[in-house]
Amino acid sequence: MHEFHTRRKIEFVDTDMGGIVHFSRFLVFMETAEHEFLSALGTSVDLQLDGHKIGWPRVAVRCEYASPARFGDVLEIHLRVIRKGTKSMTYGFEFTNGDRKIATGEVTSVCCELRPGEPVQAIPIPDFIADKIEQTP
Amino acid sequence: MHEFHTRRKIEFVDTDMGGIVHFSRFLVFMETAEHEFLSALGTSVDLQLDGHKIGWPRVAVRCEYASPARFGDVLEIHLRVIRKGTKSMTYGFEFTNGDRKIATGEVTSVCCELRPGEPVQAIPIPDFIADKIEQTP
Amino acid sequence: MHEFHTRRKIEFVDTDMGGIVHFSRFLVFMETAEHEFLSALGTSVDLQLDGHKIGWPRVAVRCEYASPARFGDVLEIHLRVIRKGTKSMTYGFEFTNGDRKIATGEVTSVCCELRPGEPVQAIPIPDFIADKIEQTP
Amino acid sequence: MHEFHTRRKIEFVDTDMGGIVHFSRFLVFMETAEHEFLSALGTSVDLQLDGHKIGWPRVAVRCEYASPARFGDVLEIHLRVIRKGTKSMTYGFEFTNGDRKIATGEVTSVCCELRPGEPVQAIPIPDFIADKIEQTP
Repeated sequence: MHEFHTRRKIEFVDTDMGGIVHFSRFLVFMETAEHEFLSALGTSVDLQLDGHKIGWPRVAVRCEYASPARFGDVLEIHLRVIRKGTKSMTYGFEFTNGDRKIATGEVTSVCCELRPGEPVQAIPIPDFIADKIEQTP
Repeated sequence: MHEFHTRRKIEFVDTDMGGIVHFSRFLVFMETAEHEFLSALGTSVDLQLDGHKIGWPRVAVRCEYASPARFGDVLEIHLRVIRKGTKSMTYGFEFTNGDRKIATGEVTSVCCELRPGEPVQAIPIPDFIADKIEQTP
Repeated sequence: MHEFHTRRKIEFVDTDMGGIVHFSRFLVFMETAEHEFLSALGTSVDLQLDGHKIGWPRVAVRCEYASPARFGDVLEIHLRVIRKGTKSMTYGFEFTNGDRKIATGEVTSVCCELRPGEPVQAIPIPDFIADKIEQTP
Repeated sequence: MHEFHTRRKIEFVDTDMGGIVHFSRFLVFMETAEHEFLSALGTSVDLQLDGHKIGWPRVAVRCEYASPARFGDVLEIHLRVIRKGTKSMTYGFEFTNGDRKIATGEVTSVCCELRPGEPVQAIPIPDFIADKIEQTP
């Protein structure tokens, strides 16, 4: 799988006094879309491997805002696998509201082993996940 | 003025189940540092011009995460004016915790007139603000 | 209508370093359920009356937490109209996860006219809304 | 110690499209004030006891909202120890902005041992914390 579509309805708490969605919320929208993508693959962002917790800390994110989103809007979110690395994934996101482009973004997550009390350690993406993900042609 | 220093103590609500600060919070930290910078200039992010509200919607943001921040950490935030345009400002941010680099980021905000019921309209940065801001040499 | 059922999937950002949903998030879950209830009635939380904006600021909220909710949980939310006043509504909420009780809460919202630059003014709930809401017997 | 004073400046992200602070944010303000109180006692909300993590999950919260708070407001927060139990603490909070009463709230937290993979277990408040806290007369 190399792409995924989802939707998200804007909630009151997503907005700020400017009357539009707070720009930081788009990072949350990207994260949740990424988790839904992993679920659709049959895996999860919250899993164990050999008794150790696996996580996907973010190392880089960017977002460009084309047009504001407002309370009650239903955003279409299009996730694509921009780059599939050995230890990391880069996802691209397009947010649209009907014909209107709202925002585009990109997130790079690194597959890590999380052992309590130890520094986070990057590891190769386990095969049972990696095998299901393809880079967008 | 072309740079500004501030600090921020990490709150419990800033963290997620990974035990570290949620990546979206850094956008909030950047925004508040930008507002403190505007306050230090003697202006505000929430002002009126000729009876109309002025705002600074974000058009682009990026952030790279070098090392996790945790509950109780006090982050040093260093804001620099990367680019002073006619209608927009680009700020750069460095987050550190003592000697440890936590994150770097960049935000571009556009000066806009916000008239109720009308589309947001970019306007030249008013002189009384622009005159106080310099681009970092 | 005097009750309403909805569901909500817990997102990563809803959690804190304790590994569970942050207690403040339940207020957001209640608010969004209330908005879905108003939508189901054919109205909205974001409407105009005679050219003026109507809003529902909260005057009181309480929540009791019985059991933690975690990432990926799908909470069942049961809203009931506890009290229908002339100018205010009190909603009760029950959050469950299967057989497990998660939390109960209550919110009182006041119907207000929001005129820019003037203090918020409580008004009688407009008939076209009030006529559709019943108090739970 | 049975009371504590702190302040909090309202940030842009605290607001919603109603132009005022979102009601859920007051729970965050209470939590952070509680953590500052524990710090002032020389302890922390994030501590270990005999190698196990201690936490203070909330079991009940309520808040009444008297007057809206807005961007840039500096709220005075007055915490009082309403009830000191064997395993739990109830704190009361008053939020004011100059002479204006903004909100009052109450939070009950239970002292718990958090062992990974086990249910949260309420424990007596350790003496080195309990000895420093008094109930407000």
